Formats: sequence, structure tokens, C-alpha cells
Amino acid sequence: LCDLRSDTVTRPDAGMLQAMAAAELGDDVFGEDPSVNRLEAVLAERLGKDAGLFLPTGTMSNFTAMLAHCQRGEEVICGRGYHVYAYEAVGASVLGGIALCPVAVRGDGALDPAEIRSAVREDDPHLPISRLLSLENTHNGLAVPLADMAAAAGAGRAAGLSVHLDGARFFNAITALGCSETDLAGLADTVSVCLSKGLGTPAGSVLAGPSDLIAKARRWRKMLGGGMRQAGVLAAAGLYALEHNVARLAEDHARAAEMAGVLRSLGAGEVVQATNMVFFTPADGRNDGLRAHLAADGVVIGGGSSGAIRIVLHRDVDDAALARAVQGLKSFYG
Amino acid sequence: LCDLRSDTVTRPDAGMLQAMAAAELGDDVFGEDPSVNRLEAVLAERLGKDAGLFLPTGTMSNFTAMLAHCQRGEEVICGRGYHVYAYEAVGASVLGGIALCPVAVRGDGALDPAEIRSAVREDDPHLPISRLLSLENTHNGLAVPLADMAAAAGAGRAAGLSVHLDGARFFNAITALGCSETDLAGLADTVSVCLSKGLGTPAGSVLAGPSDLIAKARRWRKMLGGGMRQAGVLAAAGLYALEHNVARLAEDHARAAEMAGVLRSLGAGEVVQATNMVFFTPADGRNDGLRAHLAADGVVIGGGSSGAIRIVLHRDVDDAALARAVQGLKSFYG
Amino acid sequence: LCDLRSDTVTRPDAGMLQAMAAAELGDDVFGEDPSVNRLEAVLAERLGKDAGLFLPTGTMSNFTAMLAHCQRGEEVICGRGYHVYAYEAVGASVLGGIALCPVAVRGDGALDPAEIRSAVREDDPHLPISRLLSLENTHNGLAVPLADMAAAAGAGRAAGLSVHLDGARFFNAITALGCSETDLAGLADTVSVCLSKGLGTPAGSVLAGPSDLIAKARRWRKMLGGGMRQAGVLAAAGLYALEHNVARLAEDHARAAEMAGVLRSLGAGEVVQATNMVFFTPADGRNDGLRAHLAADGVVIGGGSSGAIRIVLHRDVDDAALARAVQGLKSFYG
Amino acid sequence: LCDLRSDTVTRPDAGMLQAMAAAELGDDVFGEDPSVNRLEAVLAERLGKDAGLFLPTGTMSNFTAMLAHCQRGEEVICGRGYHVYAYEAVGASVLGGIALCPVAVRGDGALDPAEIRSAVREDDPHLPISRLLSLENTHNGLAVPLADMAAAAGAGRAAGLSVHLDGARFFNAITALGCSETDLAGLADTVSVCLSKGLGTPAGSVLAGPSDLIAKARRWRKMLGGGMRQAGVLAAAGLYALEHNVARLAEDHARAAEMAGVLRSLGAGEVVQATNMVFFTPADGRNDGLRAHLAADGVVIGGGSSGAIRIVLHRDVDDAALARAVQGLKSFYG
Ligand SMILES: [Ca+2]
Ligand SMILES: [Ca+2]
Ligand SMILES: [Ca+2]
Ligand SMILES: [Ca+2]
Ligand SMILES: [Ca+2]
Ligand SMILES: [Ca+2]
Repeated sequence: LCDLRSDTVTRPDAGMLQAMAAAELGDDVFGEDPSVNRLEAVLAERLGKDAGLFLPTGTMSNFTAMLAHCQRGEEVICGRGYHVYAYEAVGASVLGGIALCPVAVRGDGALDPAEIRSAVREDDPHLPISRLLSLENTHNGLAVPLADMAAAAGAGRAAGLSVHLDGARFFNAITALGCSETDLAGLADTVSVCLSKGLGTPAGSVLAGPSDLIAKARRWRKMLGGGMRQAGVLAAAGLYALEHNVARLAEDHARAAEMAGVLRSLGAGEVVQATNMVFFTPADGRNDGLRAHLAADGVVIGGGSSGAIRIVLHRDVDDAALARAVQGLKSFYG
Repeated sequence: LCDLRSDTVTRPDAGMLQAMAAAELGDDVFGEDPSVNRLEAVLAERLGKDAGLFLPTGTMSNFTAMLAHCQRGEEVICGRGYHVYAYEAVGASVLGGIALCPVAVRGDGALDPAEIRSAVREDDPHLPISRLLSLENTHNGLAVPLADMAAAAGAGRAAGLSVHLDGARFFNAITALGCSETDLAGLADTVSVCLSKGLGTPAGSVLAGPSDLIAKARRWRKMLGGGMRQAGVLAAAGLYALEHNVARLAEDHARAAEMAGVLRSLGAGEVVQATNMVFFTPADGRNDGLRAHLAADGVVIGGGSSGAIRIVLHRDVDDAALARAVQGLKSFYG
Repeated sequence: LCDLRSDTVTRPDAGMLQAMAAAELGDDVFGEDPSVNRLEAVLAERLGKDAGLFLPTGTMSNFTAMLAHCQRGEEVICGRGYHVYAYEAVGASVLGGIALCPVAVRGDGALDPAEIRSAVREDDPHLPISRLLSLENTHNGLAVPLADMAAAAGAGRAAGLSVHLDGARFFNAITALGCSETDLAGLADTVSVCLSKGLGTPAGSVLAGPSDLIAKARRWRKMLGGGMRQAGVLAAAGLYALEHNVARLAEDHARAAEMAGVLRSLGAGEVVQATNMVFFTPADGRNDGLRAHLAADGVVIGGGSSGAIRIVLHRDVDDAALARAVQGLKSFYG
Repeated sequence: LCDLRSDTVTRPDAGMLQAMAAAELGDDVFGEDPSVNRLEAVLAERLGKDAGLFLPTGTMSNFTAMLAHCQRGEEVICGRGYHVYAYEAVGASVLGGIALCPVAVRGDGALDPAEIRSAVREDDPHLPISRLLSLENTHNGLAVPLADMAAAAGAGRAAGLSVHLDGARFFNAITALGCSETDLAGLADTVSVCLSKGLGTPAGSVLAGPSDLIAKARRWRKMLGGGMRQAGVLAAAGLYALEHNVARLAEDHARAAEMAGVLRSLGAGEVVQATNMVFFTPADGRNDGLRAHLAADGVVIGGGSSGAIRIVLHRDVDDAALARAVQGLKSFYG
């Protein structure tokens, strides 16, 4: 099977499964799981933060970060298409009593400092209280340049906001930007990193930041029901991934570029590619036909009956799988 | 004094004060205030609805309407500049667990049916559940034509949404549109009407709608702390206003048009006028100077140090007051 | 009519209506209503607090106090039968995200310091964070002695809690206790006082406390929809009541004692009386019969078909009305 | 090590780890993880329910159940010492806007039907709306008899409530009661079962119930951040546990009884035992001394410096470990 719908579909490989089975475990609700503690410490250090917190998902990582930063009635400024606004069911508002203020995302995935400045609220009882700026990198595969990140974060800080980074694909971002982990993480107070996407683990995210905020986030994690017991079985997968699966993200980017090149050469529609993602919009609108054609060859793509199809490269798509997908595309459009 | 900042500044006149003092009163928490019951019945009938509910403010009227329409996790589609999104501190989200989805407001104050359609959510756990469309008329003084209201409401209903109308200035709208009360109110399930703006009462709003929704709203009013006892003292002002202060709204519109004409003749900046509001943007940016100049003559305008100044005509600005304001403007720009 | 159901049924008398009609008014959302400002200042000073806030109801006064004291996830310790827990629809939890921890109320209306101490939470993510102790005086008519109030407040403060006093009938309490306003108010950080019960106004409450908390409460008042415009019309009634209706509360207490004496002499059931309230439990269970009998004479009592009947004396029950009620009781049981 | 603090400390054994490594995996957010789907189906069938939902923790399982059953402003009646009220940080209120009404738990762990009936609310805007009865079995180790469960559930249903069962230790309960899984589960609409306690998995719970409620709970799981990707790695542990670790719970109960017998024979304090739990209250108050003494032998007990010590038997305490604990107790008190 060649599943190109998302890098979330990655399954643990033999080495990772072995690391999981060998993991030292304890009860993380008591703070006694050595693998969880190690993962939290390792990622905190790599991101240049005081402390880390392991969570079941990126959604909960972002949620606890917002709950830790913001009191009831305070507001998060974020990109309209960013995951915290667009794909987390507005949980920060619905359950957390936090207002979300979406601003336009530029074509390059960044937020415009001027947009941020104008979204910041005056002190007026008619308005919520601006508290946090939530950035995202990568966004739709786009690795937002450090300078743009710094400009946005700077605009937020100048207005007294704290800064959170949804780094669900943090390592794809630094791979593409060619920067260090702290170059990017240093721009934000808190950073959320997912382990289950390109890094290939079954589940889990880590939130890193200052000790006081992480202590608050830990408390919210408990209330949300994210305090698992022998979570080290998942944390061990994360530790393995940090060691073995970061450098190889460049391969995914390369395969994505190759896939984009093939699609462009077929002249079958618009193609946009960045890091491990390709967005392909069939000019003939035969999305459903293409999907069925590829599925017959064990190649799975997502999306609806029209518009852009997101194609995501990841660790479980090797050269052979890519070749199969390319062959399917060529035979459909050939 | 000639206070042009808002029509909320209207004070009760002698007739209204007399009506208030003469009002039959009872304990409205027990449902026994005859004046409240009469006001709720009168407005419900005039708006063609089953039932009415008296509330201390328009903010609470809109809030209870949203709470009555929407469960936790459901979403309201509304205009980005509409009061429920922009000036009610996002209380529906912060306290009520309701998501708000702001869409662009057209230049004429209406929502585009296509925008509404694209804001409606698919059934997907990543997304909130679309439930209510909240319209507004007038919006920034603009009386949105019935056909545009109907098109927006129709787009919402076709998607399974209920429709609420924030009619804070409902009677200004029908005065400008030349339509009946039910022509406008009939487009929405629930309608909120303010009594303390152009109608001139000290406080109070009425929410009208189907009996079941109004019963729910009544319950939320109690939880919010809006269940006053001898509220009939305010309701009597509302009843008086409905009888004496509706027809005269046309005078406010006429004075607003006169004021706009003067400003245009001065050539001092951009002028936009609709119903009882004028938005004047001084070309020379001397907002503060103008404000100080007028204040010396007892004419009060609001707004900041730059941008548009909102000038609102209302019952407490008669021809003499208007003349004073016009004189001030002429002497400043003359 | 002699309405003994509640002191909330009090209607403004001629003097109060005249004060309302003569009130200086302004837009309180702009902070410009002189009558509201005066009432807030007067009550703050009398209670020995920095600042006051006028609200439509006692429910909203308590609600905004809790929102101002407590962040999301923090907890209020209060009496199980206290109004904030038992009769405000748990709004602090439902809308405000505040946990409520009810503890047993002693027979004399006080909270036991030991109960308070044991209700305070350890610092543990499984538990909410204890933040506020909410007391009540009077409670079911009982004026809780200052020493008991001080002991409860002291237990709360020793555990790091702030203290709120629901003084819906604050002036009944100090009348019965024979203490000064600051003697009682000084035990709490914030105090809520109702104007529409024994004090006889149509509606309104005032929250008094430190400036920073009142500023926060003001903000929550706006979000809840309690920010009325010319609220001075109600505030003027409150100012009048503070001047004319405080000393006379002793008459209500005396009439309640007289009523209790009559009921005891009839030997018709259990009688408990304190301040302006009598709780009478008919031994023969003929609650409905008694209610119908009295209603025929224009005497209204509340309650269900069994158990205690609450009889409340207030400004609108004068000696003649009391005599009528006594006569009705005697003829029913004679 | 012999860790007697909780059965949550259980670690996966070799067979379970092998099952986890061999698990068929997929992306559960897409509904495509075969192991998760199998676990949900297996437990739903064993509990006689339409559908199941895998969640990271029991806290989230109970939380999503309450969110699925109750709208904003509705109330859950539960035992004061039950986990949903006492140890889940009141998240249902704080984040979910659900009121919790705690009632006294009887000495045998059951709720009294009369208490339930009197906790049900009248239809009154001053009160929340009663919606759900939440039971618990086992409670503090006590297996509540089916007849008592049925009486409580019956009282709830007669009042129109739905019924949830927090069966964190569901299989301990049926082991002790000698009943079938459906005998107990059939009394409730929804049942939450934990896999990480006596059943020995690293993490995970399952909520079972009617399809419509489970669909809603699935939606809330996503918003809370409980939608993991290849969750089958944990679900496989659960499937293994259901096959291998249910029958052996009787051993834990027998060892708990043995431990209780030893403590009683030492005459060192009060001893209460039920299912896999022993509550021992040292008569001499030397809790800290005992804890230190046992720790020197690698035996870990929890609790504070005074009061009852909870001793929990589970799969990771075999006869040798038990003997070590018994030896330590004897040498301390001998
Ligand atoms: Ca909430
Ligand atoms: Ca994965
Ligand atoms: Ca007014
Ligand atoms: Ca809330
Ligand atoms: Ca009154
Ligand atoms: Ca375990």
C-alpha cells in the first residue's frame, strides 16, 4: 500500500517497536515513567526550553498550551487556516472559554505583522483581552522563513502577547529552513511538536516551554484526560524517532519534489509543493476518477470530488511506493 | 448639550417618566409584572412572533438567543463587523461554549449568500457544528434591503441553519426600508430589538421568537442574572416608546441627511450617511482639534484621534441642537 | 393585597418614584451616569470598600464577583443551601468554568471553620484549585453573628482564600446584629447588597470591593449583558432606599416576630422566625387549604403542598395588612 | 519492587508486549485502525452495547460520556466520593458547563435511591436541569451488589435520567459479584472500563453504549485531543488483557484478603478489605515510619502521614512480592 493522504498514517517500524517493547516504564501520573521523563527532557533541551510535557495528540498539546497561556475571556490571535483555528473544532473556545481571532495567512504561510498589530485589542469591556499569538510552521507544507517568523513574533511581543508555535511538523520546518532547532523554537515561548507524523510514531506530541507554563499545561492535561499511565511505551517510540527519523525527513521532501516534477511534466493541473507536501489540482476535475484509478494499484490519495488533492510523502512511502504512484499517475494521464 | 456619540445616550422625557411612574408593577421573576408582560406581548405581536422576553440589554438579548439556539460546540455564522461578533466580548464563546464564525460584511451591510454557504461546516469531528445564522439590521446605520436579508436567510435555511436578527435598531431599519415590522422580522426565527437607543428608554431590549426558544432564553436570562423584579418600570418606558417614538425616527434620519449635506458642502472629508448615522473622516486628520472645538460649544462627538468619526442623530438632538453642531462645524472648517 | 411570599415583591412608593423621575441620568456604559456613580460611591463608602458596581440583580452581582475572584478551574467553597450554590442555576460552573464546593450549613446559618478547612484542596492535578470562600448573611432570615462570620472568614483566609459575602439582605443582617455596616462588610473582600428586597427598589444590586476586583467585575458585567445605559433611574431608587428604607427594616423584623407569636399561640405547627422571615410548617399538612383560605382575603403565601411555608415581612406589608393575615390565620385554625 | 500504591502501576508483561508489537495498525482518526476497531467491538459486545470508543484514559472516558449525555447547563447526580466528582478536577463543570450534584455514598459504596430522588431538580430557572445519574462500581474496592445498583439506576430512570457507569474496575466488580458482564453493564446506558489498572495495559479505556451517544462521545474525544493515530498499539494490549488478565483478577482479590488477614492478626489498626483493595489505618499513627520501613525492603505504600493507607493488589504483585510485604509489616509491628 502507498498511502499518500497524510504523514499521520506512518506506522512504527521494527526498530521502533523493539524500542517500545524494551522501554523502561512507570506511572506517568505519578511522574515516574523514565521514558516519558527522558523524552520530555530531551525535547525540552533540543528546543532550548525549561521543560517538556508529553501528550497523546497535537490537538491536546495546542489546547493545553492555550489553556496555560490564557485565562477565561482572553484571546489568541492566529492564522485563519492554522490548525488551532481551523481543525481543532474550536475547542479552545467551546470548552476553554478562550476567544480566537483569526487573521489572514499570507501565501507563504506567514502572518503579516501589520495584521497582527491591528488584531490586538484595545482595553475595552466590549472586547476580549489579547494574550497569545499562535504561529504555525510548517503550514500546508510551507516552511515559513525565520525572518518572517521573527517579524510576526516581534509584532506580537511588542503588543505584550506571548507566542506559541504549533510545530506539528517542526522538524520538517527546520529541515527545509536549514536552521537549528533553537533557531526556530527560540522565537516562541511554547512549542508543540508532533511525533506521529513524519517522525513515524503511533501517537504522541510534546509541548516545551517555561517551567511555570508547562506545570499549568500538565494540570490541564489531567483535566482533559490526557494523563496516561505507562505512557513510556509511546515516549520510547518518540525517543527512537528523534534519533533515527529526523535526518531522513529530507528524503520525504526530495520525494515530494520528484512527485511534483512528474505532475508538472504531465501538465494535468496546478501543482504546488513544499517540504513533504504536494497540492495538485486536476485541471479536468476528474478527482474521483483519478482516486479510483490509483486505488486499483494500491495507491491512496485523499480529498474531495473537486479542488486540490493533498499528496503527503512520509517514511512509509519508499522509492518503490513512489514509483508505483508515479506509474499510476502516468497511466491515468498518459 | 448636543451629544452625537450614540443614540444610546437618549434620556427619558417627561411623558416617558410619567408612564414609568404610573406603571403597574409586579415581580417579573414570578412572571407577574403586568407592564413587562404587556411589552413582551405587544412586541411579539408586532413582530409576528409567538412570545417575547424583556432583557436589561441588547447584549444579553443576543446572548440568550444564541444560548437558546445553540448547544455547546455549535457555531454561529455572522458578519465580522456585526455587534454579536465584534462588540460583545465574544461572550457566546467565552462563557457559552459557542463557536463564532465571522464572514465578510458587504459594503451595503449585507452578508453574501455564497459566503454563508461556504462557511457552513461539513459533518467532521475536526469542526464545530453549524447551527445559527445571525444577521444585523441596521448595520453601521445601513438599512439592509429586504431582498438581501431574504437571500442571506435563505442561504442559511437551505443549509439547515436557524436565523437570528440583531435588530438593535430594528425600527430605524423598517423606517428606512419602508416595510412593515413583520416584513423584516418574518425573515428570522428570533429578533432582538433595543429600546434604549433611538426609542429613547433608559434601558432594555426585547427578544421575540417561537415559544420554545423564548422559554429557553428565559432560563438563560435567569442564569446570567438578567431576571429583574419590578422590571415593569423599564418596560413601561418601552411601551411608551413604541407608541410615541417610532414614527419620529424619520426625523433623526432627516437630520442625519442634513448633517451629511453640510459636511459634504464643507468639503472637509469623506462623508457616508445612512438612517440616523453619519461617518465623517476629516481629510486633514484634525479629529482631536475638531472634537475640542465642538466641545467648547457643548457639542460632543466621539471616536479616536484619526479615522472616521461616527455622528449619531437621535431624539435628544432637536433642530436647535443640530444647528449648534452645524455652526460648530462651519466655524471650524470655515 | 398582602403578599408574604418574598420581600422581592416590594414596589417603589411615591417618594421613590419621584426620586427616580428626578434622577440625573447619563450613559453608564460610558461611566457617565451621575446617579449610578453616586450610588456606587455611597455604598462603597458605607461598606468601607474602594469601589462599587451597580448590577441588574443579585445573581449577576454574585456571578461577576466569582468571575472576578476566580480563574477557570478554580473553586468556590460555599454553604450547600446558600443562594450562590442552590438558586443561581450553578451558572458559575455552567458558564464560568468555576467549580463550586458545597459544605454543610449549620443550624444557625454559619459555616463551620473545620468544614471550611477540610474543603480546601491540596495542590494536586486531580483537584480544582481552592480560591474563594463565599459566605451569606442573612441566610434563610438568620443573622449570622459576627463572631461566627469572622471564624469562617478567618479559616478561609488562613488557607489563602479570598472571601465574598452574599449580602442580599445585608441591612437586615446588621439591623439584627446591631453592628455597623463596616463591622460586617469588613470581614469580606467583596460584598453584594440587593436593593430590591427589603429596601424596596424595583431592581438592582451593588457589588463593593477593592478597585482591581471591581474593575474585573465591571468587565464581566458587560459580557453578561448587565451594562445598562441610563441605569441611574434604578440607582436613584437605590439612593432613596439607602436614605429612607434602612432604619425601617426593624419594623419588618418586629412584624415577623409578631406573626411568629400568633402562629405559636395557634399551636398549628412548627414556627421558626429570624429577622423578616417566618418559617411555618402546618402540623396538619393543610398547606393548600391554608393558602386558598388566605388568598380569599387577599393574603398571599407561597410554598408547596407540604413542608414549611416561608412568610416574609417587608415594606409593603403594613400593620393593616399584617392584621388581615393574622385574622386569616386565626379564622383558618380557630 | 512491590508497588502497592495503585493497580495503575501495572506494566505490560512479555506476552502483552509481543501482542502490541504484532498489532495490525492504522490511522484511528480515519477509523482505520483494525486493533482499535476490534477492541471497541469486542468490549461493546461483551458489555451488551451497540458501540465502543477507545480513549487514552478513564478520565476522558467519563468526561466524553458526560459531554455526550448532557448539554450545557444540565446536571449529573453522582456520589460525593465517586471519581467523576472527586478526582477529575471537576472538568465536566470547568470545561464542559455541566453541573455536578454530589450525594452521599453509603458505606457499601452504593447510592441511596431516596437520595437520588431528592437530588432530582424541579423544572425551575433557578436550578440546573437533571439529566444523568453516574454510578461507580467498584467504589473504593467495594463491589456494589447488583440489587443496589438496580435500585439506584431505577430511581434515576424513574425521574427521567440516563445512567452512566464508571467501571474503571468493572472486571473486579463482576469477579466479586459473580455476575456476568451484561448483568452489570445492562443497568447503565453507557459504561466506562479501564484497561490500565488490574488488566495491566500501559494506558487506555473504553466507553461502550448506544451508537448515537458513542458517536457524540467520539466527537468530543477529538475536541479534547484524545484522537490518537495508530492507537492500535495500545488497543492490542487491551485485547490481550481481555483474553489473559480477567480471570486472574480473583488472585488479586485473594491476595488482598490474605493481606487483610495478616494486618488484622497484627492488631495494628483498623482494616477494611474489598476486591483488590485494603484500607489500613495504623492505630499508632506511625504511617511515615511504616512507609519508610517497607520502602527499605522495596515495598511501596502510598497515603499521607495519617489516616488510612490504601494497599492495592494487582498483577505485578505476585506471591513472592506479597510475602515480602507481609514480612515487612510483621517486622515493623512484631
Ligand atoms: Ca465552558
Ligand atoms: Ca503515525
Ligand atoms: Ca437611552
Ligand atoms: Ca465556559
Ligand atoms: Ca422590589
Ligand atoms: Ca498499567
